[in-house]
Amino acid sequence: MNLETIKTKSAEGVLFAEIDAPPMNLIGPELVRDFVSLIEHAESDPDIKVVVFRSTDPDFFISHVDVTRVSEYRNEAARLAGELSIGLLFRHLSQSRLISIAQIEGRARGAGSEFVLACDMRFAARGAAVFSQIEAAFGALPGAGGVQHLAPLVGRGRALEIMLSAEDYDADTAERYGWINRALPPLELADFVTALAHRIARFPAAGLAAIKDRVNAACLAPIEDFRRDSDLFGESLRHEEAGRRIRRALEHGFQTRDAELSLAPLLGSLDQ
Amino acid sequence: MNLETIKTKSAEGVLFAEIDAPPMNLIGPELVRDFVSLIEHAESDPDIKVVVFRSTDPDFFISHVDVTRVSEYRNEAARLAGELSIGLLFRHLSQSRLISIAQIEGRARGAGSEFVLACDMRFAARGAAVFSQIEAAFGALPGAGGVQHLAPLVGRGRALEIMLSAEDYDADTAERYGWINRALPPLELADFVTALAHRIARFPAAGLAAIKDRVNAACLAPIEDFRRDSDLFGESLRHEEAGRRIRRALEHGFQTRDAELSLAPLLGSLDQ
Amino acid sequence: MNLETIKTKSAEGVLFAEIDAPPMNLIGPELVRDFVSLIEHAESDPDIKVVVFRSTDPDFFISHVDVTRVSEYRNEAARLAGELSIGLLFRHLSQSRLISIAQIEGRARGAGSEFVLACDMRFAARGAAVFSQIEAAFGALPGAGGVQHLAPLVGRGRALEIMLSAEDYDADTAERYGWINRALPPLELADFVTALAHRIARFPAAGLAAIKDRVNAACLAPIEDFRRDSDLFGESLRHEEAGRRIRRALEHGFQTRDAELSLAPLLGSLDQ
Repeated sequence: MNLETIKTKSAEGVLFAEIDAPPMNLIGPELVRDFVSLIEHAESDPDIKVVVFRSTDPDFFISHVDVTRVSEYRNEAARLAGELSIGLLFRHLSQSRLISIAQIEGRARGAGSEFVLACDMRFAARGAAVFSQIEAAFGALPGAGGVQHLAPLVGRGRALEIMLSAEDYDADTAERYGWINRALPPLELADFVTALAHRIARFPAAGLAAIKDRVNAACLAPIEDFRRDSDLFGESLRHEEAGRRIRRALEHGFQTRDAELSLAPLLGSLDQ
Repeated sequence: MNLETIKTKSAEGVLFAEIDAPPMNLIGPELVRDFVSLIEHAESDPDIKVVVFRSTDPDFFISHVDVTRVSEYRNEAARLAGELSIGLLFRHLSQSRLISIAQIEGRARGAGSEFVLACDMRFAARGAAVFSQIEAAFGALPGAGGVQHLAPLVGRGRALEIMLSAEDYDADTAERYGWINRALPPLELADFVTALAHRIARFPAAGLAAIKDRVNAACLAPIEDFRRDSDLFGESLRHEEAGRRIRRALEHGFQTRDAELSLAPLLGSLDQ
Repeated sequence: MNLETIKTKSAEGVLFAEIDAPPMNLIGPELVRDFVSLIEHAESDPDIKVVVFRSTDPDFFISHVDVTRVSEYRNEAARLAGELSIGLLFRHLSQSRLISIAQIEGRARGAGSEFVLACDMRFAARGAAVFSQIEAAFGALPGAGGVQHLAPLVGRGRALEIMLSAEDYDADTAERYGWINRALPPLELADFVTALAHRIARFPAAGLAAIKDRVNAACLAPIEDFRRDSDLFGESLRHEEAGRRIRRALEHGFQTRDAELSLAPLLGSLDQ
């Protein structure tokens, strides 16, 4: 594998994939291209049973998509998903025989949240990790699977609150809501995830695959619903008001590290 | 709007609707008529994006239906729902483009709980709010959407516990179960809800509508199931034993403020 | 009733069924035969509305199936379920007019967890009860309803974590995840469950049945999915690797009280 934005190492059936796309792990064409290569590589290697996703940047897991490069990253996603949609790429991961675990120390907003929702499990650093679906602030809806994952995970009321408010949620609230599996003390998080990954990798592959298949059959939404959300997201961004709000956000620091550390107030003032 | 039992004020895209139907906010024909008028009015005003429901009575949000006036309030519901069912009226609100938030300081039992379940979000005062589905004590089932909302929100086991026990649940337990979004300190509740409502109202209407549509498509039960529960509720009240228990309850203070402050013991002794 | 492995007593509409199958309440043909007899007896007695399941052994509610007697206990299950599957027997209980409550003081692993998941409600002793789906350690999947119950109850991420990790979960974590209704202090558990059971038994049978029917219609998975899991479980156990791991587990104390007190480490080392 020749990856620009993801560092990898593997040990005993577990592939550790560290996202490393400075300045803040935006989802652009490079990161999507590397996700595609990584998933294809791991799926073709029968020795790899589990993939752990984490970030080299303690403040940002994945900030969100780079709003200035939507069509570019969509083109990269199509290489694996067959369609211009990172939602379908992420759903490929949900359906893969690979067991995926997200270890989240920093921010995971927009499609960053949707990426961890597509993973099989999510563990986050208490007091440090931040989750948000930011799309409503621009007049859009989450287009990469957020609706399809959050509705069954957290229920109608909390799913609407999360997506209509575009607010930041800390790890404890995300755990209480069911957005993530568990919030853990930051100093225990990596060891917990590593031990869990290695434990799972010692179990027979056939059973892991059967469990994942049956759970997906029971509660993973049909691909048509992911595709519909992806299409609606694209349409919503073509509205004049969405363009206006994106420009205003960029003028006020959106997609810079400083503003992204605490994004909720900026998102709440784009009508002014 | 000319409302008898709801006080309204609106500001910056948010309509605040305060239920004011003394002595304890029973659901009778007047309150249902006012709900219908309020929803019709708000839906026809493009400036209103969010409706916040709260109560002027700190002890009672909505106590439950007035069991002596079932056919009267059902007739009022039919004006908007097209059918003799407050469950279908409440579901209209769930499907409306209006974003609805319930701010619950006091008791919300029976159809009062079902009303807040039909709202898009529910926030309650810790140590003060009380939730209950009381129908089993009379030999009935929740007929205004309780089954259809609680089953996906809290899961099979807790939904059965809530509805089979007819017990009172405090705000913290209701939060842990997923019945409500969140329990908050009583002194922070109003400010939290007001800020959330105004934040949402500053976002473009098209995105809010798209999010609500897609979430409803993912997890709001079909109208047939609400209709079926409503019909079964009507049938169950026609049983002799239901009539006997309702009479006994009324003799022991049901539908008086004093008894309604702590209703669970009374409901547990109607067989005697 | 002439039961070998379950002690019963009944009072005021509630049947208390105490599992008593030393040395550790393994599911073998005797216990399954007694479950069948107990359910048939209770369903035919209109005075019994609620069944409370508990254990005479404070350390074990139900340890799991006796892996040396799978075909024997499957034959017993067929008497009531009509098919060679304890998953279908358990699902019969979920669909019964009987209201079932599990009171869990000790361990409930594998099919023991699946039995309590099939009950209508689950209450457990904080700091004492233990829950686990152990199947992945052998290359199998939960075959008696675990997938179908856990996926909607705890959501995709936690369901996968539970079933892929084969880890032990304490009562507090199980409550937070939604696996059980509630964790209670050990000294309060029996009184809480007894009071709840008697309260429900004082309500009219018709309403209880209607509530259960409607909740099942809303969220109990179709019988075909239970049957499919049961078949896949049987197939997975026929793999060579599963047999090897079961033999290694038995050599290291699996199905002895001592090893079963803390089973997770043993399950994590069967590849060695």
